Amino acid sequence: MAKQDRRTLTPFQQRWHNIIFEADTPAGRLFDIILLAAILLSVIVVMMESVASMQQRYERLFTLLEWAFTIVFTLEYLFRVWCSYRPKAYITSFYGLIDLLCILPTYVEFIFGGAHFLLTIRILRLMRIFRIFKLVPFLNESKQLALALEHSRRKIAVFLFFILLLTVVLGSLMYVIESAHNSGFTSIPVSVYWAVVTLTTVGYGDIAPVTPLGQAFSALIMIMGYAIIAVPTGIVTVEMSRLKDKEDVDLRVCPHCMREGHDANADYCKFCGSKL
Amino acid sequence: MAKQDRRTLTPFQQRWHNIIFEADTPAGRLFDIILLAAILLSVIVVMMESVASMQQRYERLFTLLEWAFTIVFTLEYLFRVWCSYRPKAYITSFYGLIDLLCILPTYVEFIFGGAHFLLTIRILRLMRIFRIFKLVPFLNESKQLALALEHSRRKIAVFLFFILLLTVVLGSLMYVIESAHNSGFTSIPVSVYWAVVTLTTVGYGDIAPVTPLGQAFSALIMIMGYAIIAVPTGIVTVEMSRLKDKEDVDLRVCPHCMREGHDANADYCKFCGSKL
Amino acid sequence: MAKQDRRTLTPFQQRWHNIIFEADTPAGRLFDIILLAAILLSVIVVMMESVASMQQRYERLFTLLEWAFTIVFTLEYLFRVWCSYRPKAYITSFYGLIDLLCILPTYVEFIFGGAHFLLTIRILRLMRIFRIFKLVPFLNESKQLALALEHSRRKIAVFLFFILLLTVVLGSLMYVIESAHNSGFTSIPVSVYWAVVTLTTVGYGDIAPVTPLGQAFSALIMIMGYAIIAVPTGIVTVEMSRLKDKEDVDLRVCPHCMREGHDANADYCKFCGSKL
Amino acid sequence: MAKQDRRTLTPFQQRWHNIIFEADTPAGRLFDIILLAAILLSVIVVMMESVASMQQRYERLFTLLEWAFTIVFTLEYLFRVWCSYRPKAYITSFYGLIDLLCILPTYVEFIFGGAHFLLTIRILRLMRIFRIFKLVPFLNESKQLALALEHSRRKIAVFLFFILLLTVVLGSLMYVIESAHNSGFTSIPVSVYWAVVTLTTVGYGDIAPVTPLGQAFSALIMIMGYAIIAVPTGIVTVEMSRLKDKEDVDLRVCPHCMREGHDANADYCKFCGSKL
Repeated sequence: MAKQDRRTLTPFQQRWHNIIFEADTPAGRLFDIILLAAILLSVIVVMMESVASMQQRYERLFTLLEWAFTIVFTLEYLFRVWCSYRPKAYITSFYGLIDLLCILPTYVEFIFGGAHFLLTIRILRLMRIFRIFKLVPFLNESKQLALALEHSRRKIAVFLFFILLLTVVLGSLMYVIESAHNSGFTSIPVSVYWAVVTLTTVGYGDIAPVTPLGQAFSALIMIMGYAIIAVPTGIVTVEMSRLKDKEDVDLRVCPHCMREGHDANADYCKFCGSKL
Repeated sequence: MAKQDRRTLTPFQQRWHNIIFEADTPAGRLFDIILLAAILLSVIVVMMESVASMQQRYERLFTLLEWAFTIVFTLEYLFRVWCSYRPKAYITSFYGLIDLLCILPTYVEFIFGGAHFLLTIRILRLMRIFRIFKLVPFLNESKQLALALEHSRRKIAVFLFFILLLTVVLGSLMYVIESAHNSGFTSIPVSVYWAVVTLTTVGYGDIAPVTPLGQAFSALIMIMGYAIIAVPTGIVTVEMSRLKDKEDVDLRVCPHCMREGHDANADYCKFCGSKL
Repeated sequence: MAKQDRRTLTPFQQRWHNIIFEADTPAGRLFDIILLAAILLSVIVVMMESVASMQQRYERLFTLLEWAFTIVFTLEYLFRVWCSYRPKAYITSFYGLIDLLCILPTYVEFIFGGAHFLLTIRILRLMRIFRIFKLVPFLNESKQLALALEHSRRKIAVFLFFILLLTVVLGSLMYVIESAHNSGFTSIPVSVYWAVVTLTTVGYGDIAPVTPLGQAFSALIMIMGYAIIAVPTGIVTVEMSRLKDKEDVDLRVCPHCMREGHDANADYCKFCGSKL
Repeated sequence: MAKQDRRTLTPFQQRWHNIIFEADTPAGRLFDIILLAAILLSVIVVMMESVASMQQRYERLFTLLEWAFTIVFTLEYLFRVWCSYRPKAYITSFYGLIDLLCILPTYVEFIFGGAHFLLTIRILRLMRIFRIFKLVPFLNESKQLALALEHSRRKIAVFLFFILLLTVVLGSLMYVIESAHNSGFTSIPVSVYWAVVTLTTVGYGDIAPVTPLGQAFSALIMIMGYAIIAVPTGIVTVEMSRLKDKEDVDLRVCPHCMREGHDANADYCKFCGSKL
């Protein structure tokens, strides 16, 4: 997305662009706070609507509020398109699609009717909060957490892949052991579900072993899960510890080659050998 | 709270002030131990009272003990006000309010009657233990733990906020998947409660998925929760490790070779052998 | 297995050997990908077969697919024997036995019939994935994880042995406390199973304490389990942290000032500025 | 226990003392292995005896074996007293009492009869394994684990004390919220038990919240427990990491002041300044 693709905005559009897309002016900050409140309120309404007793008593109020939020979010969406430098880029972006997805269900239900579960899609409005998140002072912290997870992404992927294979094998063995004596282990997929429930130490108890062999084998799986949980913890801790160390790093820039990343105890640039 | 706000205490009040508010005299320490015993006993009585069979058998004893504790704590409260340098400051302080809250319910029930649940407020007397905690040698340890949590407060807040958003989104999706086939997922709030129960690996099993899609999706949530638990652990471990390191560092510089990094128990420079 | 034991392969066998046993040629990589797909598909078929409703509707398709996979894997097995340098070594190796075990059940069931559970052995085909794993770029990550676990193997063994003793003792005590009042704690082995379920924080709830003493004792076990889980986590984290540190260290010494501790990306000594 | 308290053993007693109390001779090692086998077998017999169906079928065999083990352990006990340097010290020591406790129940039941649960005490024979543990090569690992736990003992005690207070307060609040609508929360002690089950993420589900407020509050407790579990993990990890660092420490002794504990990069003794 090179700069030359930008269309020219009128000063009026320009002003609104700053309010909607930036957060460093008082007006922009106010806009974000109002949007945040609207999102949270609308999500609470969606949640309340799903409670049968609430829905019966306040059906009218809920419908009214839902239309109000839908109209507000629709206007906001159109506004964003109107004052964006690259309207097409915005519409096809991740947040652009989320924004659209959050207003469509109400219209679709109005026109075609009946698609009750479609309305739950509106809960995705919560995702929009992450965009406003640039407002809060916690941004730096969330960036560090994201970075630590990002760095350990591949190790965690290998770990999860291994867990997946393990649960399939363990679940199948348990199916062989228990299925003849237990109404819970009806098929291998269900047994794999049970293995995940057990290995992650969730333990619903909707399916539980009843044969002595099955219980002994389950005990083994649990102790295994208890030890395995150490692995992701170790990965993330080491990664965070490394980021913390780097954070303490020297901010000096070499006056000669302009590169940074020097140790705190360095007297000379490690890239070109000039005095720091 | 400048020193000039202090009222002047008589020597008699002064002596009691030291006993009640300080713990460095034998009398003060004895006062703290007696108070600790009274608090623990009164909490045990409140707990026993709630057991129906105990209440029937020992109702009289419990009423008697409860009045005894209430009178003791009332006297202690009045004493604290009487021998405090700034009575108003004490009354409106956090511990002052807790102290008051712990004696009021018995009187309120006596006068107005019936407010049975009000009596459970007396369990808050446990909070008073933290004040006496200055007595025990564990103070340093609890300070270090509190410091580590304090330092990682913002990261943990971001993490919990993210978990909250995640459980709302996951719970809503699960509501869409399961609600038609499962008597447990009656509304979105209940499904969010289920998502928290699952993601934190608690897993009551009062609500459990029954459809194949729901079980597959639950398995994903569990494995996610299993990996996510690594994050707060990593945060706290890194913070504790940093505090530990700081504690150990010696800031002395060798007067001869000007290098540092010496151990706390070193008398001579480990690089050049000069006296530190 | 000295080199002189190798039999001589014809150039034709040699070519196939490279395709089947190595992954560094395009043909070898293609072979691995096709094999991976066949393994995953066949495992999915085995899982679907175990679902009663699926089995009734698609019985014919499943039988057909199963024979197709069995024939493919049989041909692959014979091919591996045919173009191996040491056929006997391959047949008696771990993966050779797995390969055989994955095709036998179908034939055995065809000849002797009825051995339905035997078919579940085919799920072991998943183990074959680990051999193909040399293909994926995640190899390095999985090696590091394996190394960290390998290094902490003995500490974890001691830990698991201790957990085993602990659960036997705790389970037996709980049997004494609960068995007279609770239909769940029928014997010591079952109580030990319960102790494992509780200590690992799985908590099915199929067996739960009902007496006050039993509940108090369970609460103690849970808190113990909550603290004990820190041990394997600590072991693995420290081991991973050590491996990470070793990975980062640079062993170069400055030729001028003879000091070390340089970063891996340094070109000049950070202490005196000489070329490294 | 000064050396002069030791009684003089005959050479015959002396030889047996070495076999029974030491493990560095072949005979001593053989003795330990036989004892270990006897302990494990006798514990398995106690466990099998508690299974009703096993007890009915093999009652005779179990009684026979139990008497055999009791006689063997009684002889061993008398032997230990006979060839000990300080018989009284042995009898009143921790392991001496365990040894006695492991043989008494069978005699007591034979004489007084009926004390069935008394027999379960024999499971404590497992504790005797720890004494033989000096045999295995894992000793060093278990010492390190014990040391890490020993060092973090006080921090973990503060943590557990805090968890205890927390569960009492949370359980009481939950009792107020749920007891009127839920047959599970019958008293404060039961609610505290529930709070422990929830905070430690065990989650049996024998008691579960049913009111919306109770479920919301439970969700809070779970997320709290999810974050709190980071604390003991952090404590133990940091302590293990420290021990690991110390382990890597230099073994050089100063030739002048004979003290050790120098850093790996030290050239001069940090205590007296002599050249190392």
